[in-house]
Amino acid sequence: MAEQHGVLSAGLVDEPIPVTHPVKIQDLTFRDGHQSLFATRGRTEDFLPIAEDMDKVGFYSMEVWGGATFDTMHRFLGEDPWERIRTLKKYIKNTPFSMLLRGQNLVGYRNYPDDVAEAFVERACENGIDIFRVFDALNDFRNFETAVKVIKKHGKHFQGAICYSLTESRMGGEVYNLDYYVSKAKQLADMGADTICIKDMAGLIAPYDAYVLIKTLKENVNVPIHLHSHFTSGMADMSLLKAIEAGVDIVDTCLSPWAYRTSHPAVEPLVVALKGTNRDTGMDLKLLAKCSEYMEKISPKYRHLLDDRMSIIDINVLLHQTPGGMLSNLVNQLREMDAMDKLDEVFRQLPIVRRELGQVPLVTPTSQIVGIQTVNNVLFDTEDERYKMITAQVKDLCYGLYGKTPVPIDPDVQKKALKGYPRGETPISVRPADVLEPELEKAKKDVEGLAKDLDDVLIYALYPTTGKRFLRWKYGHEPIPDEVKPKTLEQVKAEEELMKKAKAGLLVEKPTKEAPPKGPGVCTFNVFVDGEYFEVEVEQVGGMPLVTQITPMAQPVAPPAPAQPVAPQPVAPQPTGPQPMVPPPPPRPAPAPAAQPAAAPPPPKPAAAPVKGATNIEAPMPGMIIRYEKKEGDTVNEGDVVLILEAMKMENSITSPVAGTVLKINYKDGDSVQKGDVLAVIGE
Amino acid sequence: MAEQHGVLSAGLVDEPIPVTHPVKIQDLTFRDGHQSLFATRGRTEDFLPIAEDMDKVGFYSMEVWGGATFDTMHRFLGEDPWERIRTLKKYIKNTPFSMLLRGQNLVGYRNYPDDVAEAFVERACENGIDIFRVFDALNDFRNFETAVKVIKKHGKHFQGAICYSLTESRMGGEVYNLDYYVSKAKQLADMGADTICIKDMAGLIAPYDAYVLIKTLKENVNVPIHLHSHFTSGMADMSLLKAIEAGVDIVDTCLSPWAYRTSHPAVEPLVVALKGTNRDTGMDLKLLAKCSEYMEKISPKYRHLLDDRMSIIDINVLLHQTPGGMLSNLVNQLREMDAMDKLDEVFRQLPIVRRELGQVPLVTPTSQIVGIQTVNNVLFDTEDERYKMITAQVKDLCYGLYGKTPVPIDPDVQKKALKGYPRGETPISVRPADVLEPELEKAKKDVEGLAKDLDDVLIYALYPTTGKRFLRWKYGHEPIPDEVKPKTLEQVKAEEELMKKAKAGLLVEKPTKEAPPKGPGVCTFNVFVDGEYFEVEVEQVGGMPLVTQITPMAQPVAPPAPAQPVAPQPVAPQPTGPQPMVPPPPPRPAPAPAAQPAAAPPPPKPAAAPVKGATNIEAPMPGMIIRYEKKEGDTVNEGDVVLILEAMKMENSITSPVAGTVLKINYKDGDSVQKGDVLAVIGE
Repeated sequence: MAEQHGVLSAGLVDEPIPVTHPVKIQDLTFRDGHQSLFATRGRTEDFLPIAEDMDKVGFYSMEVWGGATFDTMHRFLGEDPWERIRTLKKYIKNTPFSMLLRGQNLVGYRNYPDDVAEAFVERACENGIDIFRVFDALNDFRNFETAVKVIKKHGKHFQGAICYSLTESRMGGEVYNLDYYVSKAKQLADMGADTICIKDMAGLIAPYDAYVLIKTLKENVNVPIHLHSHFTSGMADMSLLKAIEAGVDIVDTCLSPWAYRTSHPAVEPLVVALKGTNRDTGMDLKLLAKCSEYMEKISPKYRHLLDDRMSIIDINVLLHQTPGGMLSNLVNQLREMDAMDKLDEVFRQLPIVRRELGQVPLVTPTSQIVGIQTVNNVLFDTEDERYKMITAQVKDLCYGLYGKTPVPIDPDVQKKALKGYPRGETPISVRPADVLEPELEKAKKDVEGLAKDLDDVLIYALYPTTGKRFLRWKYGHEPIPDEVKPKTLEQVKAEEELMKKAKAGLLVEKPTKEAPPKGPGVCTFNVFVDGEYFEVEVEQVGGMPLVTQITPMAQPVAPPAPAQPVAPQPVAPQPTGPQPMVPPPPPRPAPAPAAQPAAAPPPPKPAAAPVKGATNIEAPMPGMIIRYEKKEGDTVNEGDVVLILEAMKMENSITSPVAGTVLKINYKDGDSVQKGDVLAVIGE
Repeated sequence: MAEQHGVLSAGLVDEPIPVTHPVKIQDLTFRDGHQSLFATRGRTEDFLPIAEDMDKVGFYSMEVWGGATFDTMHRFLGEDPWERIRTLKKYIKNTPFSMLLRGQNLVGYRNYPDDVAEAFVERACENGIDIFRVFDALNDFRNFETAVKVIKKHGKHFQGAICYSLTESRMGGEVYNLDYYVSKAKQLADMGADTICIKDMAGLIAPYDAYVLIKTLKENVNVPIHLHSHFTSGMADMSLLKAIEAGVDIVDTCLSPWAYRTSHPAVEPLVVALKGTNRDTGMDLKLLAKCSEYMEKISPKYRHLLDDRMSIIDINVLLHQTPGGMLSNLVNQLREMDAMDKLDEVFRQLPIVRRELGQVPLVTPTSQIVGIQTVNNVLFDTEDERYKMITAQVKDLCYGLYGKTPVPIDPDVQKKALKGYPRGETPISVRPADVLEPELEKAKKDVEGLAKDLDDVLIYALYPTTGKRFLRWKYGHEPIPDEVKPKTLEQVKAEEELMKKAKAGLLVEKPTKEAPPKGPGVCTFNVFVDGEYFEVEVEQVGGMPLVTQITPMAQPVAPPAPAQPVAPQPVAPQPTGPQPMVPPPPPRPAPAPAAQPAAAPPPPKPAAAPVKGATNIEAPMPGMIIRYEKKEGDTVNEGDVVLILEAMKMENSITSPVAGTVLKINYKDGDSVQKGDVLAVIGE
């Protein structure tokens, strides 16, 4: 009793069906899984123990690199990104490696010039990447050209990805309709794509849209089709199933412990669901269970990176068709601005701003670009002026530096954004990288003597500040800071024990107040409290003994050292006369293992009281000073840019509202400021 | 461009399709959602704020009662179960209420006699239940008869449920094949079922099995079909979708925050997935989002009841086709017995024992009955004797007290189990309740003066011990203990603050050791450390002062009370002479809010040292003494039952290995014992 479901035939367990078209599965556990769940903090050492088992499962490929891994590895993990490929390759010898390449953005957040792009892709090929999933945030495939040339030259696999986006609650509408995707897929096939991926980074694709999209692509393009989605909205496993019924060739999953939430559907239920159909994956569930059990075991190391929402899905994605992370960024930004009451207005304006900015897909970085500009418009626009505060990124977008938008940008917005734009006020129509100057030779010179090979140079070329710091760590010029070191399961266990004790009321608050300065009449005793040895310093004040410090010493202490009488110090006479003195006690030992602080505290803020009789330039939003364009003593005209303030990864030009002289600069580059802080003072 | 998927037609957003057969949705948030995730601890007060909104969504029905709610409400929450129905009914006026009724087990864990069953179902009807989902763990529908009679008499809706079970990884095999389910469904239709539910309590149903099962049921039975599954294995949302394509009429979901994990698929993604199809639910996503947002907000109150596994699914369910809870129970039991090395053997034996016990569905209580008996066999069987330790429940099952098993019980096992069985050694073939004596009148007498109405009596009749205690709480005869009171969001927040502090290293361990006894020469000082006032008692020992206690006093203390000289106490002379004394310090104030302990600590254990020259009866497993069948001084024969020990909710008869006299009984009924504890001593 076989049933047809599109190209899928299913029977009962008693009536097996020949497997004619097994679904191929790419595993994302080692890249997008932890990028989605744990801010890309997965470490190579945690992958190695199951690397060989994973190789035996029979995955079509394993995504192990690209996306944010290059950034986080060198910045937060103290790991050489290139080394990860080579190390994993020692254990995973049969399964091809894939990476996510952000087109001309490579594994960074801006378009790099061609010389850097060529060198990067070449080194990725040579270090062991087999399949390159290439995407562009605008689906402007001109941004693929440089990478594809190198991929093809090395005989590697070029997977062309189309970012899946929506303007309605389901596929359709004026831009992101079936025709759009078919025509994009045909473009990729013409470019020589070995496979084509529908990249649904926000988890937007609904099951029956997945079905019709995949079916139509299969009918129109003669290249294998790969579907990538996220569980964010709760639809992705259903959508994979319908895509499989429609004939999709490859799908993306994770091992169950690192699946779901903003990650991907789990592999195990899919393997069981397809058992007994003509699309059976043939995978060994027991082997998968072994790998999953391991991932579960090490997960406590990463658990603290997950938020503790109860829901594992984000239904705002279903309501607004925007990526999950984008909305939480908007909410955070509004909260920081004390403007949470504007949230509904932001939701209302978002589609308008997106439309004006060319109806771009919402994916990093375009989701931030549209989101932050919308917030700026809602907060700073006046009745007679819209787009009052335009971010640098929106200006770049309007200039064409990201590529061609799906529909043209609103001409008024574009004109306003490009007023005084340094590269010129007329937007370009060429491939963005065509206007970029080469950077590789300069990079090589910059890190001469520090970088040992081209891989090193590329770390610097992509991430100048953190890349250089990483190279100093790598070659021992600078110690690797503690916060970069991995969290061990022992630390996690100690932390859990601590939490348990805290919950059971066995912990008390450590006094945080500072002790008053010790007087000269301090008298020291060795005191044993409850078997614990204390060095107690007591100073008699007004006829009453005063304990100024109680410091538990290292334990066990047996036998206790007798108090050492010390010569009285010559001090101002005290009513009680001289007392025995001892050297200051050692610092109090750490009472219990504590969590590593998430980040170093911000530098102390310089005093920034407004100056009267002059014009204060206040921070319109919390953020970080990128740079001052003016220094104290400079003359400024009204509207001149005084400084660049970064907020939510977007750069904002802060201009002077008056002409005059810069009297005071209150911060320096890199300082964090709060809304309302006086950044500069202009005198008349 | 409409596509047919079984009875479902889907189009694109631009080409809407008429909604011909909308999927009906039952919400489980208020019952099975929290039963699955939070041990049924959901409180009425947390449901009321969205009750009216939930009523507006347009659910086919809301499951609000039954299952474990009756037990946990009166036992752990101090809530009158009957009152919940009446209270919710005040807010939810349009959506029918459903409950889960365990057939003749009602909302308890044993078959109740007909008089209790009739009264219970009658009161449920009259208190406001509209739809009764009735199931039996053996799918022996004779156990429905009494309930159905009352349901029909009151003109209420009888939903007959079939427990979904498997013996293979997918539907099929000798018992749980398509024919089985069709024939069961026909039986229910013949009994007058208004709807028929496939109740997949373990999340076993795979998508293509769901499709063929629902399709076949729709073709063979003229009664609406309802599918209930759990997300436990990660397949349930895909299975609902395929069931919908096959024409299922009603499906079960939860609001997303209380969905997934061992709970049910979320409603929101399903609503979006079905948009634009002929089976569109028509539900308002924004209204659902409002309800979900509220549930997310109150979820921290319940969060501590979730385990902290990273994976939200349990792939053991896929591997072994057993309910998730059953496996973790087995693992816990083995761990308590120090026998984790036997886990693989338990997995190997499980299908054998299940087969011998009549291939019963694995659902409460049969999953425990099979699981515990398997563990007993693995641990206690010898080479020449199997089923050496048979639980009381297995004996009842063999007698026929649960009903008819899907295949006959192994005759050897049955014979062994029924040897000396109090009701007789010949199993019954009649409906189990036919052999049960009425209980209602006795129950009424038992709680005369305490119970005010039949609802009260039924609480006692179903749960004599905890039910009586609840009635005492209800009528103020006994104060409601603190652990029964709800956790507030404020408490949760305080706890979170505490955890944050603990992680930041701001807490130190509270000394847990006891101070040595204070000598007579204690001298008391008022000491102010860092502004904090300490009462310090110091006793000079061997020429050195000894601080025996440092007690922070209530704060703020301003001005500090001067030390009060007290008359010297007449004590044995000390080298240092008499010292001023003060009364004992007040108890140290609670340092920070602490989590409520999960349960009261067990009563102190009586000394149970083995007696020499006699035979000790040791506990073969950890558990609770249900009752001693013998008392000290009684004569016993070899094999006589000395006591009943409950382990993992199963009763085990502990017999005497020798003939003799009971010299000693070391525990009393209700005591908890560890493995190896001497329960009784038999002398010759």
